[in-house]
Amino acid sequence: MKALVYHGPGQSSWEQVPDPDIEEATDAVVRVDAVTICGTDLHILKGDVPDVAPGTVLGHEAVGEIVEIGDGVRTVHPGERVLVSCICSCGHCRFCKEARYGQCLGGGGWVLGHLIDGVQAEYVRVPFADLSVHPLPHSVASNDAVMLADIFPTAYEVGILNGCVRPGDTVAVIGAGPIGLAAIATAQFLTPARIIAVDLAQSRLDAARRLGADAIVNAAEAPEALIADLTDGFGADVAIEAVGVPESFELCTRVVRPTGHIANIGVHGRPATLHLEDLWIKDVTITTGLVDTSTTPVLLRMAAAGRLGLSSLVTHTFPLDRMEEAYEVFSHPADSAALKVVLNRVVA
Amino acid sequence: MKALVYHGPGQSSWEQVPDPDIEEATDAVVRVDAVTICGTDLHILKGDVPDVAPGTVLGHEAVGEIVEIGDGVRTVHPGERVLVSCICSCGHCRFCKEARYGQCLGGGGWVLGHLIDGVQAEYVRVPFADLSVHPLPHSVASNDAVMLADIFPTAYEVGILNGCVRPGDTVAVIGAGPIGLAAIATAQFLTPARIIAVDLAQSRLDAARRLGADAIVNAAEAPEALIADLTDGFGADVAIEAVGVPESFELCTRVVRPTGHIANIGVHGRPATLHLEDLWIKDVTITTGLVDTSTTPVLLRMAAAGRLGLSSLVTHTFPLDRMEEAYEVFSHPADSAALKVVLNRVVA
Amino acid sequence: MKALVYHGPGQSSWEQVPDPDIEEATDAVVRVDAVTICGTDLHILKGDVPDVAPGTVLGHEAVGEIVEIGDGVRTVHPGERVLVSCICSCGHCRFCKEARYGQCLGGGGWVLGHLIDGVQAEYVRVPFADLSVHPLPHSVASNDAVMLADIFPTAYEVGILNGCVRPGDTVAVIGAGPIGLAAIATAQFLTPARIIAVDLAQSRLDAARRLGADAIVNAAEAPEALIADLTDGFGADVAIEAVGVPESFELCTRVVRPTGHIANIGVHGRPATLHLEDLWIKDVTITTGLVDTSTTPVLLRMAAAGRLGLSSLVTHTFPLDRMEEAYEVFSHPADSAALKVVLNRVVA
Amino acid sequence: MKALVYHGPGQSSWEQVPDPDIEEATDAVVRVDAVTICGTDLHILKGDVPDVAPGTVLGHEAVGEIVEIGDGVRTVHPGERVLVSCICSCGHCRFCKEARYGQCLGGGGWVLGHLIDGVQAEYVRVPFADLSVHPLPHSVASNDAVMLADIFPTAYEVGILNGCVRPGDTVAVIGAGPIGLAAIATAQFLTPARIIAVDLAQSRLDAARRLGADAIVNAAEAPEALIADLTDGFGADVAIEAVGVPESFELCTRVVRPTGHIANIGVHGRPATLHLEDLWIKDVTITTGLVDTSTTPVLLRMAAAGRLGLSSLVTHTFPLDRMEEAYEVFSHPADSAALKVVLNRVVA
Repeated sequence: MKALVYHGPGQSSWEQVPDPDIEEATDAVVRVDAVTICGTDLHILKGDVPDVAPGTVLGHEAVGEIVEIGDGVRTVHPGERVLVSCICSCGHCRFCKEARYGQCLGGGGWVLGHLIDGVQAEYVRVPFADLSVHPLPHSVASNDAVMLADIFPTAYEVGILNGCVRPGDTVAVIGAGPIGLAAIATAQFLTPARIIAVDLAQSRLDAARRLGADAIVNAAEAPEALIADLTDGFGADVAIEAVGVPESFELCTRVVRPTGHIANIGVHGRPATLHLEDLWIKDVTITTGLVDTSTTPVLLRMAAAGRLGLSSLVTHTFPLDRMEEAYEVFSHPADSAALKVVLNRVVA
Repeated sequence: MKALVYHGPGQSSWEQVPDPDIEEATDAVVRVDAVTICGTDLHILKGDVPDVAPGTVLGHEAVGEIVEIGDGVRTVHPGERVLVSCICSCGHCRFCKEARYGQCLGGGGWVLGHLIDGVQAEYVRVPFADLSVHPLPHSVASNDAVMLADIFPTAYEVGILNGCVRPGDTVAVIGAGPIGLAAIATAQFLTPARIIAVDLAQSRLDAARRLGADAIVNAAEAPEALIADLTDGFGADVAIEAVGVPESFELCTRVVRPTGHIANIGVHGRPATLHLEDLWIKDVTITTGLVDTSTTPVLLRMAAAGRLGLSSLVTHTFPLDRMEEAYEVFSHPADSAALKVVLNRVVA
Repeated sequence: MKALVYHGPGQSSWEQVPDPDIEEATDAVVRVDAVTICGTDLHILKGDVPDVAPGTVLGHEAVGEIVEIGDGVRTVHPGERVLVSCICSCGHCRFCKEARYGQCLGGGGWVLGHLIDGVQAEYVRVPFADLSVHPLPHSVASNDAVMLADIFPTAYEVGILNGCVRPGDTVAVIGAGPIGLAAIATAQFLTPARIIAVDLAQSRLDAARRLGADAIVNAAEAPEALIADLTDGFGADVAIEAVGVPESFELCTRVVRPTGHIANIGVHGRPATLHLEDLWIKDVTITTGLVDTSTTPVLLRMAAAGRLGLSSLVTHTFPLDRMEEAYEVFSHPADSAALKVVLNRVVA
Repeated sequence: MKALVYHGPGQSSWEQVPDPDIEEATDAVVRVDAVTICGTDLHILKGDVPDVAPGTVLGHEAVGEIVEIGDGVRTVHPGERVLVSCICSCGHCRFCKEARYGQCLGGGGWVLGHLIDGVQAEYVRVPFADLSVHPLPHSVASNDAVMLADIFPTAYEVGILNGCVRPGDTVAVIGAGPIGLAAIATAQFLTPARIIAVDLAQSRLDAARRLGADAIVNAAEAPEALIADLTDGFGADVAIEAVGVPESFELCTRVVRPTGHIANIGVHGRPATLHLEDLWIKDVTITTGLVDTSTTPVLLRMAAAGRLGLSSLVTHTFPLDRMEEAYEVFSHPADSAALKVVLNRVVA
């Protein structure tokens, strides 16, 4: 089959590789019908994630059809259309028993396109299939469902739920890329009184507005002042970091109100400065986290019920074999205005 | 009357001042029977808390008898023995309505010995008396009760409850001064499987052991390794910072397990480095906070029921007029082995 | 002034009574601009609430302007337009400190139109004004705001929050009178996947649909079957009782899923049968409660932000002096199709 | 092998049956070293649980050694000493993913000694071994550990955690049989200010006192009055039903304070009367539940750390082949003063 293979920093290609097989009794092999590219994939290509060995197929967000299962798979079957989650779960370890699948100690967690071959391919082997794929209802289209493999559960769990967003809150979302936009979308499940989006790019602020932000502000134009104005000087109840740089995290600590929450979603490469000399007395709660995808069943129900507009994040689609072109478009959003790009299997 | 008056950095004296009077209808005047000195008072004397104006009477932890009340006081009466809490509460503002009295916007919060005259005096005016003093049951002695004015609610609320200590947890307490010891004492309300105390001073580690720590380790001797050993490599479920320096906060972030909690109690004067490049993926929750004293009624019930050993923290007692000597002893714990010192009114 | 005075079961009249005065320093007198009638008022008139002494002015839901305050009132002032909450709060008792104002032990709780003169009058004395009235933002009209005096906080606190409604849930609301409709409206703050309304009257089911119910079913037509069908046989995640008769409570216990919640809002006059022989193993949580109005500030923010459609429940308006006619209309909803009726002061 | 076989109401015998075998890849066969009898087994023998087919081996609480595992078992191995939990878990269904194993839809839940052969035998087949057995630390003796198969997790999860016991609470435990005593023991994890035990038998009240009850009262002697006296008239914060008859449930509803919790543990055969005419306004929370054994790992940690005195409930021990005699003793506690009886494999 063909797949997008990582060959070390700056190098990858869409090339012929062996078809995947069942290796463990709990595996399934899935034919990929829809797949997307994550900002994390770009980090890998820059060499920021040294765990990824050259030769690994990238990608961790897909929808497809099960074509083969191991003897130990009990709940899903060949022919079923499924969501392949970015997180696998062994189901037996301490963390899986607490639904903290992202921290799985038994061979799951984030492994696809990281420690084992991923989903940017015609076929993919998925470990622990009973717990790692989700059968899809007919009413959810594949190109929508693929948004539920990573960015929507990440935004919802690590941003909205960790941040304890409650009805009537003011929520500040720092960063309006795909994850920040998904945070804006899922924050609305809890009906904040007001969502304020902060970014440097006007196009992303415009997208934030379309997805439900009530106010937008350029990060260069003193967002602290606007947020204070809108909240009688209190600050945001919840500040969500969706960029992954120290500056945006530190902005969160300045705009949050006393007794408020800061939820970090961003993937960081450098330390931040935590101003404990100001914060020790401010009663703040700061959370970090990798997605568990424990909310994927709920998000699927919401999508099936028409409560979650997924397609609005997809700006470009390609046939699967134009993977390299899709990477080009996705990695230059300033030019392409790309949010999420989806690649589809071509039906002959 | 006599009181301990702050005269600017490094200067204070036990001297004659005017007696306090009722100023607002909701005030009470309390005759001080037992009072203690807080580490924060030493910070004030060093000049670290510039909000304190020269001329202010210090102190925010006392027990005494109400001698006068304003027209608007409804629930307490002259002659009652009461605990004067370190936190006052207006009862009307947004934060008081949520029992976050430490953040009071209506004239309460931490004001005694800070923004208004405090309790290291023969008499003190207490604002919002209905919500700021607590009548004492006969079964709780005054020198025990004074421990409930600040350090026990601080340790319990900001350390144990914010840290979400649960039965069976491993709790690491970094710093075994009075606050850390009170954290060790109140952690036991939730029956951790194991409490590990970390400090640099052997005398404080010994005190930690007496108050219920299951393991002690010198901060200079790689506490990370011991904590990892005792937890199968996972780390502590809850790490409590009870020192107030960046190093101990950063130690907390290294010894906490994935999905664990870091509760900062320490009063910090400098920023810490937050290693988000490690922590973003580790699912940690970090909390900061000023005490609200919302748990004071519960702690009083616990003390009255004999569930809370308060007296073990009191190492020295003095008559009230030897206040300056008590400061000397308290400010040199390496020599005096002082934990908490209590000063008492002399009954003629 | 004129007021609606209760004269014992079945008897009341709009008649001349003395103007109210400040009695306690914490009182305010409010001129009533908008007032509504509650189902509870009809219960009182039937003699179901013997605590109400003949001679009492009825009513506990109003908006008006403060005309006078006592010496101890600190945060509100003559001339302010305020919401008079159905619940007063002393602010000092154990329950008020926990924001359980409905259980106030210090002279608050539900007293207006019950133990003291109420708001169906030209003027009303409100105890503990600092905590019992809420200044209104300009953007919320008085006839909308009056919906926040009782039915919206009751539905939200006792139904939605006690019921732990979460995004993606199926919520069954049994009873589509004003309280049930307010439950349907406020459930949407948490974005259930599906709200199912059950009632006997088609007009109320139609109103439920307008307010956001996704499915409606006549109580006479086996709602258990429909709810099972819509939930793959699991049952509702949350079942809300909004009638106040044993039959509807028992229906809740049959339609809730294992591990689900039953939130009782209804005012009951008779016991229900609790089928513990079925329920002991089903992991259900049942809650009851009187409103605390602790969420009134949040609901006001939501209304000001345009997130809460209040006016849709008001079917009839009258001038204040047609109070008796308004009672007629409200007490015959089958004829009048009345949901809430609002009476307004006539501006000369 | 020999086993205790149910032959219909009133009939059972310790008799020869075929040895169990691995049937599914996820099964294990365990050699039983310690086993106990549950009150539920007596209910089965009375014919109260018609799901149990004649021919079934009874028993659901055991400790033993794994002798064989299926191909799909990954985390436990022959030779390991394990606790066999009363609840099995498929690990894949909606409820197992939420750690609500008692409600398992995939073939687990309470099946041992109920729907499949149980543990009152020399050997037992355990389904889903990875999730249904727990390896035992050396420091926990088998006869202690067997208390963790059912009664301790049941008391802790369904009584203490569902009842939201908090430090400083007053907890009333109605019924001081084995489950009630385990509730008294595990309530102390949360350090209530006061535990009050209620029973009709003085011997059980004495046992309650030994296990940590602070006050005891005969159910025939107006426990409502004592509980009111001890709580300033408020009532218990948490009332735990540990009998399983309507009278004791209804007593719970009378002794609980406004805003308090009632946790039902008892297995009921008849409905109770729920006095909603009193309770609707009282802000109570009532919970029911079957144990999930989700806390078994925590309880094992507590036992290993010496925080949980398990052995105090074991009043009688027998060799395994005196099973019938053990049933006699256990089913006549008034004569035998039996709490829990344990049967052990005889080592030749």
